Amino acid sequence: MLRVGLLGAGRIGQVHARTISQHPNSVLSAVSDAIEDSARTLAAAHRAEMRRSEDIIADPQIDAVLIATPTDTHSDLIETATAAGKAVLCEKPVDLDLARAMACQRVAAQNGQPVMIGFNRRFDPNFATLKASLQDGEIGAPELLAVTSFDPAPPPVSYIKVSGGLFRDMMIHDFDLSNYMMGALPETVSAVGTSVVDPEIAAAGDVDTAVVTMTYADGRIAVIKNSRRAVYGYDQRVEILGSGGLLQAQNVLEHTVVKSTADGVLSAKPTYFFLERYMAAYRAEWDAFVTAVTTGTQVPVTLEDGVAALAMAEAATRSARTGAPVRLEEILKPVAK
Amino acid sequence: MLRVGLLGAGRIGQVHARTISQHPNSVLSAVSDAIEDSARTLAAAHRAEMRRSEDIIADPQIDAVLIATPTDTHSDLIETATAAGKAVLCEKPVDLDLARAMACQRVAAQNGQPVMIGFNRRFDPNFATLKASLQDGEIGAPELLAVTSFDPAPPPVSYIKVSGGLFRDMMIHDFDLSNYMMGALPETVSAVGTSVVDPEIAAAGDVDTAVVTMTYADGRIAVIKNSRRAVYGYDQRVEILGSGGLLQAQNVLEHTVVKSTADGVLSAKPTYFFLERYMAAYRAEWDAFVTAVTTGTQVPVTLEDGVAALAMAEAATRSARTGAPVRLEEILKPVAK
Amino acid sequence: MLRVGLLGAGRIGQVHARTISQHPNSVLSAVSDAIEDSARTLAAAHRAEMRRSEDIIADPQIDAVLIATPTDTHSDLIETATAAGKAVLCEKPVDLDLARAMACQRVAAQNGQPVMIGFNRRFDPNFATLKASLQDGEIGAPELLAVTSFDPAPPPVSYIKVSGGLFRDMMIHDFDLSNYMMGALPETVSAVGTSVVDPEIAAAGDVDTAVVTMTYADGRIAVIKNSRRAVYGYDQRVEILGSGGLLQAQNVLEHTVVKSTADGVLSAKPTYFFLERYMAAYRAEWDAFVTAVTTGTQVPVTLEDGVAALAMAEAATRSARTGAPVRLEEILKPVAK
Amino acid sequence: MLRVGLLGAGRIGQVHARTISQHPNSVLSAVSDAIEDSARTLAAAHRAEMRRSEDIIADPQIDAVLIATPTDTHSDLIETATAAGKAVLCEKPVDLDLARAMACQRVAAQNGQPVMIGFNRRFDPNFATLKASLQDGEIGAPELLAVTSFDPAPPPVSYIKVSGGLFRDMMIHDFDLSNYMMGALPETVSAVGTSVVDPEIAAAGDVDTAVVTMTYADGRIAVIKNSRRAVYGYDQRVEILGSGGLLQAQNVLEHTVVKSTADGVLSAKPTYFFLERYMAAYRAEWDAFVTAVTTGTQVPVTLEDGVAALAMAEAATRSARTGAPVRLEEILKPVAK
Repeated sequence: MLRVGLLGAGRIGQVHARTISQHPNSVLSAVSDAIEDSARTLAAAHRAEMRRSEDIIADPQIDAVLIATPTDTHSDLIETATAAGKAVLCEKPVDLDLARAMACQRVAAQNGQPVMIGFNRRFDPNFATLKASLQDGEIGAPELLAVTSFDPAPPPVSYIKVSGGLFRDMMIHDFDLSNYMMGALPETVSAVGTSVVDPEIAAAGDVDTAVVTMTYADGRIAVIKNSRRAVYGYDQRVEILGSGGLLQAQNVLEHTVVKSTADGVLSAKPTYFFLERYMAAYRAEWDAFVTAVTTGTQVPVTLEDGVAALAMAEAATRSARTGAPVRLEEILKPVAK
Repeated sequence: MLRVGLLGAGRIGQVHARTISQHPNSVLSAVSDAIEDSARTLAAAHRAEMRRSEDIIADPQIDAVLIATPTDTHSDLIETATAAGKAVLCEKPVDLDLARAMACQRVAAQNGQPVMIGFNRRFDPNFATLKASLQDGEIGAPELLAVTSFDPAPPPVSYIKVSGGLFRDMMIHDFDLSNYMMGALPETVSAVGTSVVDPEIAAAGDVDTAVVTMTYADGRIAVIKNSRRAVYGYDQRVEILGSGGLLQAQNVLEHTVVKSTADGVLSAKPTYFFLERYMAAYRAEWDAFVTAVTTGTQVPVTLEDGVAALAMAEAATRSARTGAPVRLEEILKPVAK
Repeated sequence: MLRVGLLGAGRIGQVHARTISQHPNSVLSAVSDAIEDSARTLAAAHRAEMRRSEDIIADPQIDAVLIATPTDTHSDLIETATAAGKAVLCEKPVDLDLARAMACQRVAAQNGQPVMIGFNRRFDPNFATLKASLQDGEIGAPELLAVTSFDPAPPPVSYIKVSGGLFRDMMIHDFDLSNYMMGALPETVSAVGTSVVDPEIAAAGDVDTAVVTMTYADGRIAVIKNSRRAVYGYDQRVEILGSGGLLQAQNVLEHTVVKSTADGVLSAKPTYFFLERYMAAYRAEWDAFVTAVTTGTQVPVTLEDGVAALAMAEAATRSARTGAPVRLEEILKPVAK
Repeated sequence: MLRVGLLGAGRIGQVHARTISQHPNSVLSAVSDAIEDSARTLAAAHRAEMRRSEDIIADPQIDAVLIATPTDTHSDLIETATAAGKAVLCEKPVDLDLARAMACQRVAAQNGQPVMIGFNRRFDPNFATLKASLQDGEIGAPELLAVTSFDPAPPPVSYIKVSGGLFRDMMIHDFDLSNYMMGALPETVSAVGTSVVDPEIAAAGDVDTAVVTMTYADGRIAVIKNSRRAVYGYDQRVEILGSGGLLQAQNVLEHTVVKSTADGVLSAKPTYFFLERYMAAYRAEWDAFVTAVTTGTQVPVTLEDGVAALAMAEAATRSARTGAPVRLEEILKPVAK
């Protein structure tokens, strides 16, 4: 039974609390949050203790911590938790600053504890099914990946201002998903980003609509489309063309009822947002973490994966600014020194 | 917090145990089963006690019992449990014998405790969405209901012999669903049943493929198709034609991945069987029971509903034998005396 | 080059005129109609002559006639045309009177000319694809056939009064389609029919909504649903459950555009009515007739097929009235004497 | 009645011959081809004359010419035909050389005859439906266009060598479709192209897989994906995200039959290639040309449209080579001087 401390009691922390509690091999021991009331309420709901993060990390009775705090605390918490011998599951992104994330990666490697990054989409049953088909060679050699990822509505501009921008905050999921599907990092990243959804987003220095094209050493291509607004719901689709066919993961719909009237044939919308769409993914992600930690095997999404996605976001941000493609090694090398 | 005793620790009892435990307002206190080891294991998994059914029923600390025992014990257990002041959720069917079920209904009515019958499909989110559209008048006045309900594979012939036959064992769900959708009982029931799946089923005196047509006082028609075998999975579809359009509840698929190759475009099969398809329905059913009992409101599926579905199964069995349509009142009246 | 006389220049006659003209191996030579202006206009559009039916039939330069006149003239025209040595394609139904149709069948048999009945749906590319899959054993042995056939809107009540009723006028297509798919005639026919669409239809002595269930000697079952009104278009679906799976022919839609908005996901309706849906079928039907006649092979839909469908309509009409199932041999035998 | 001369009797010329003949307001008068036998056979099938191109163009009895000859003859034929007072429908592309195409545009403008370019996809009923929805504001302001366009199999390498490359030969259709959908030309064109389908294509100096991203003055973005090989058929999809929703034109399938077995649910593939997919488009295109010419209105796809698409192909070719985005005005201006 894995004893878990949860750092962060916000929206995503609450999701994780439930997942931890419902898993047969883990128990939620303690919860911390900068807002103590939030931690207290969440802890109470799961018969856990409200504690401070440093106390949770220092407690030898705690086996693992789940970091669901604001992004700018991730690197520090990963370092201190692994130093204290904890296994760590940390929400994405590792950091907004690539150099800091890479430094954290080195420290964690020295500390020798497993660190998994919460790229939940890898654990979505549909994407996992697609990946399995791909690995089984059902469409031969993959050639062209296309990811469509639209949020139903933009976050508040106040959030956007501290988010690191669309590429680091939103598309980072799609970068990781591309790495997962392609099984390799791209060589080049070309981005265009514009603001057509909300002029306040442009005023905040960010884009709300973007397309990124990536090329791979073996000639494969991936393209990611992002928009901050799809009024019909959370549009999350992946398709891969291969030498032997096409694989598509289509949207998950709210229900299966279809209504035919004189106006046409009306089906359900995609599920509204990530909590609805990816709840099964969060459970599978946690199960994968518990299994890896308790069996001593490699976690399925590493800190290195987190750094790679962040580097791609960095490359895309730069490319969107200059217009020119950016080689991923240009991003990774100077920083890695 | 509703304290619940579970009678029956078989496959469906295990489903209910989990549902009871996970509900925020109910707790599983005790489990009984004719096979004590089954009860013991299930009770242990939920920190409940293993007890005998009569002790559970007699215990004033228990608020409600969930009856998931063999069908021939249902009526007795409903009677004794309601006499002991328990609220009851009983699995379908109430009884294989209509007269016995009606007698039970009278006793339960005298005892004055809520008795809900476990017609889980009413709580399937898709069917509930369809029903809501219907009630909102989205397709005007309903005229023609069609239910397709195929099992993936027939049960063992040993089970079929004691099942009461396809109409009482399998189609009873579809009879209740028809009553739910149409909001009225049919006047006439016409059935044809044959055996084309397995000659052993015919040898056991049952059918494995059947179509039932029902007419209503206002001219509406319903038709139900059943087969014991659909090799592609559990086929559960409902459609209703109305003056303003058509509503269809389509199958729930295993995943959303679509593969296009030179052989065609391959999608996922329907979920395999009732545990996969109706897990959300079991949860919603239990929630509805807990809500009704704790708020003192009417349970949404009554013992009367259970008796009605059983009478329709009786009518269908008779019609399939004679070839002639059977008026439902012929079935209900003589027994009701 | 088959020289063809077209008898009847109404809506369906106009469809056939175009089909005849566009076929590389047939030419439209003459057109007749009780309303001479109609015949004249249609003939002119196809560089054909306007003539009287008897003159067309008597003309040795004409190889074949296509009968698209009112139903009560079909039998007479089939008899005189085959007596005159013409190959015949006659629109459905052969006759409203079964005895008359059977007498016509005997006369035509003596005359020895090919007579094909215009059950166009057999030639719909989708239904033909389904039939081919069935024959290739792709779902093993067929067990349960379901035909859904809804018109978009009822015809005028004046038409219904002379139509012979829903079973002879509308469901006759579905009876033939069932015979085509099942490859055998049913043993029993059970029908329910009501009027919920329009009380004037009931006042005219007809039904507008009906379900017919048929059983076969080997235990298979077929069920047909008809409604005179589906406001979303012409709903024409067939599905067959077999020992190895399910085959479905879904509706043909007006276009492939899908619109997702906050209101849901809107697709196109089925094509509106038979001219839109079955235009390709009419062309394939004519091609099959021309091929059979010019190569001296058997026409793919015989007068016997037309009589069988009519007998099933007769059986259904009787069953809907009495409530009891009707054995098809009861219908066929006394008449056949 | 428009009297038409057809220049070119190859595969696409044969399609046009049938379309011209079947149109009620046009007649095919003459056919030419470098291979006289081809012209003779095609002319005979349509009761037209076999003639030389220059004789057709010089003949005052001919109203219009349809140019379906090899690309390198297009500009010359457009110039001489318009000089001779003919209306012209010319297959795409106008030319492989942008400067030559622009010179041709100037000459044609002086000659004052209508010249339409055969971008058939604009006339596909599905794309036209999507465009109409867009114009009606059904998804608000368009923001992000995505075109997927995969051929079922690559052409022979011998063809690729003279084709002008993927961007000019294949993607040119998608450039025009983007212009049609967006109602504006892009400002920038960024392309990546690789060869993963066939190394011989790379050896011939071309790419077989490509993604082009385009930006517009108002911030909108378009992305086009091309592959020379999709083994499941001709994949032709368009989707546009707007402020009020998403419009998608999905593939046209070979039939509507769906087969469910233990292996999954199998639907039909997309229609195989352009002749199957776009036959209705060719008819609508010709009808639009005939209507414009006979009513003296503007043809719906102009020579200017053809030049614009060619310029975009030129920009994409250059961008794919350098990696940098290309501004469309850089392409259009120097040439236009």
